[in-house]
Amino acid sequence: MNIPEQILEMGRRAHRAARTLATLPSNSKNRILTAMADAITKDGDAIIAANTRDMTAGKAAGLSGALLDRLLLDSARLGALTEGLDRIVQLPDPVGEQLGCTKRPNGLLIRKVRVPLGVVAVIYESRPNVTADAAALCFKAGNAVILRGGTEAHATNTAIWEAMVRAGTTAGLPPDAIQLVPTTDRAAVVALLELDEHIDLIIPRGGESLIRTVAERSKVPVLKHYKGVCHVYVDRDADLEMARNIIVNAKCQRPGVCNAMETLLVHEEVAPRFLPRAGEALQSRGVEIRGDERTCRILTDAKRATKADWSQEYLDLILSVGIVTSLDAAIDHIERYGTHHSDVIVTDDEEAARRFTDQVNSATVYVNASSRFTDGVEFGMGAEIGISTGKLHARGPCGLPELTTYKYVIVGSGQVRQ
Amino acid sequence: MNIPEQILEMGRRAHRAARTLATLPSNSKNRILTAMADAITKDGDAIIAANTRDMTAGKAAGLSGALLDRLLLDSARLGALTEGLDRIVQLPDPVGEQLGCTKRPNGLLIRKVRVPLGVVAVIYESRPNVTADAAALCFKAGNAVILRGGTEAHATNTAIWEAMVRAGTTAGLPPDAIQLVPTTDRAAVVALLELDEHIDLIIPRGGESLIRTVAERSKVPVLKHYKGVCHVYVDRDADLEMARNIIVNAKCQRPGVCNAMETLLVHEEVAPRFLPRAGEALQSRGVEIRGDERTCRILTDAKRATKADWSQEYLDLILSVGIVTSLDAAIDHIERYGTHHSDVIVTDDEEAARRFTDQVNSATVYVNASSRFTDGVEFGMGAEIGISTGKLHARGPCGLPELTTYKYVIVGSGQVRQ
Repeated sequence: MNIPEQILEMGRRAHRAARTLATLPSNSKNRILTAMADAITKDGDAIIAANTRDMTAGKAAGLSGALLDRLLLDSARLGALTEGLDRIVQLPDPVGEQLGCTKRPNGLLIRKVRVPLGVVAVIYESRPNVTADAAALCFKAGNAVILRGGTEAHATNTAIWEAMVRAGTTAGLPPDAIQLVPTTDRAAVVALLELDEHIDLIIPRGGESLIRTVAERSKVPVLKHYKGVCHVYVDRDADLEMARNIIVNAKCQRPGVCNAMETLLVHEEVAPRFLPRAGEALQSRGVEIRGDERTCRILTDAKRATKADWSQEYLDLILSVGIVTSLDAAIDHIERYGTHHSDVIVTDDEEAARRFTDQVNSATVYVNASSRFTDGVEFGMGAEIGISTGKLHARGPCGLPELTTYKYVIVGSGQVRQ
Repeated sequence: MNIPEQILEMGRRAHRAARTLATLPSNSKNRILTAMADAITKDGDAIIAANTRDMTAGKAAGLSGALLDRLLLDSARLGALTEGLDRIVQLPDPVGEQLGCTKRPNGLLIRKVRVPLGVVAVIYESRPNVTADAAALCFKAGNAVILRGGTEAHATNTAIWEAMVRAGTTAGLPPDAIQLVPTTDRAAVVALLELDEHIDLIIPRGGESLIRTVAERSKVPVLKHYKGVCHVYVDRDADLEMARNIIVNAKCQRPGVCNAMETLLVHEEVAPRFLPRAGEALQSRGVEIRGDERTCRILTDAKRATKADWSQEYLDLILSVGIVTSLDAAIDHIERYGTHHSDVIVTDDEEAARRFTDQVNSATVYVNASSRFTDGVEFGMGAEIGISTGKLHARGPCGLPELTTYKYVIVGSGQVRQ
């Protein structure tokens, strides 16, 4: 079989497995997940040995330090991975949840019931923990999953997958419920994106270019997790001490992630008081500031921001800073340059907070808190498969319920339409 | 401006209008909708005169009788149209509905709130009532809308749109909230499908080829309303009198619609008793039966079905009939040939009903009722913008809530992430 035929066959098998998975009871799913977590612990040495081979090959191929760090799986990270699986066991099963129920005047009982999506394909880059994580989340939500990891992590991914499937199968995992694409050839990805007959959703996890490529070429719906150009707006009526803590956290606590702040907007009335203190706090933590003209008159050692800065996701200790004349100007700026991911207002004025949360068209809008909380675990979802930057189906952090759809189940007693 | 520039400008304007619409209070929206309905009644003669021009041109162009019937707007149909708008006024406003609320251990209050999608484009064929209907539904859900109707209905659509916007504007309709593409050039459709920067959802309403073209070419997410190959399965334990009523209704009450039955499956144990009575009832109503081999041995005057019949959406008084050896065989047939739209089991066996509703992977599954109830009004939604055959975002009949998305609004008191 050539690669497209191989992928088609995987799709067909996944499709068949999905029928069995859709009605698998919660306790069976949890028993299987527990067996899989135990197997990863038990096979830890073999998995780490496989990872060592990947690391050696990666170093020889000249992968960057950042990439090698993402690729590394040591015993601490392996422990975190199995703990993640145990948390997924604890989460409530979304399948079968009743989302609505109406009795119509003609006696029809219409129930809206949560059901799995069917088949999910996850296309990811170097982090091997995604293999376990994504498989477990898709499985718990009753979906068959096809995994396609990065070339550089292939030995590690295969070792994790083999451990999970072997132990899972003994515990009752249906055949083909969790498949790993055996080849690292890119033709396999292209074939997956064409398989709208058998795959219901594709989730790309990785950098912007991976997500863009998948979104542009896919015939299958894609859960897009694009970049976050997140803003903090310090209002005229902000508690400036609180504002300083929030911006330091939003920028510095983990600058390389999508919910970190990239642009700070400050109301002109508080800028002269706020910016010197904020600038000092940021610069003492190594943050490079790129300000607009008025900001640079206050922070005289700041660089001047170019127009490109306002839509830049730095993912680094760099921050663009602008002074705005009003709340409306701040909202306009965010709507114009932002990516509708996570945006914050710091204010004690309830009316300003209400207008900001009403008018800023982002998946998550905050009043008086750091943007860094946009995350499935922080939201109480227990785990996340990604953060959707689209508006259709799911928005913001996506957990188990976002890996499902619904059907209407209607029970009658012979009703016909007049 | 050339056509793509013109459409881009309409998209920009719609995008701006959407910001105002997102926070328009319910009572303003209802006042505007009422004014628009009144204007259509008041301008009835002018709208009907425009329709007469479309009809004359359509006859001259040799449109079929079915197309001319869809195009026709007489005073009775105009009355139904304004009644439809009045019903939309009565529907609860979905915007602002709280879908969830959690207080996290760190004190963050996370609310999940329903918000409009933003900009919706509706691309439709000959029925001019869609102009009013789609505009009103999108507007009530807080969205800006761009309408692109069929060439043959352009004068009628323009007259309806002008009446609505003129009266709406006086009552407070924001500028550009409801736009009609002024040209009938197909380049306008192509340009709409490219406008993912400004349009959030495209809804094609019409035949399969329109929907397929839009779905294949669109960069914008599409609410797909594909065909319905709907099944009724008469189980071993069916009440055969009820089964006969249901299949006559599902096939004959309105054969040209997507929720009409196209295939009847009968359990082999009841086929010898059921099929002669059922066949008589159907044939007396002019239904042509195309049976599998065993069916044709019982209904000796039936045609033989070919393999192509099982996936055919006849939209006509034609029915494919098959005999199955078991419930599982019926489910297998439906999963193989169906389109996951609306499928029915007739049975008195609760266990069989449960297995059917669990395992048939359709948007709507029925026990002991006609498939013809798959419809927004019958579901109690008040109105519908379409019936989704996709699994993402919305499934089955779509009303006002399906024209919305959600955002997370988070209120803190200075929380930062550890």
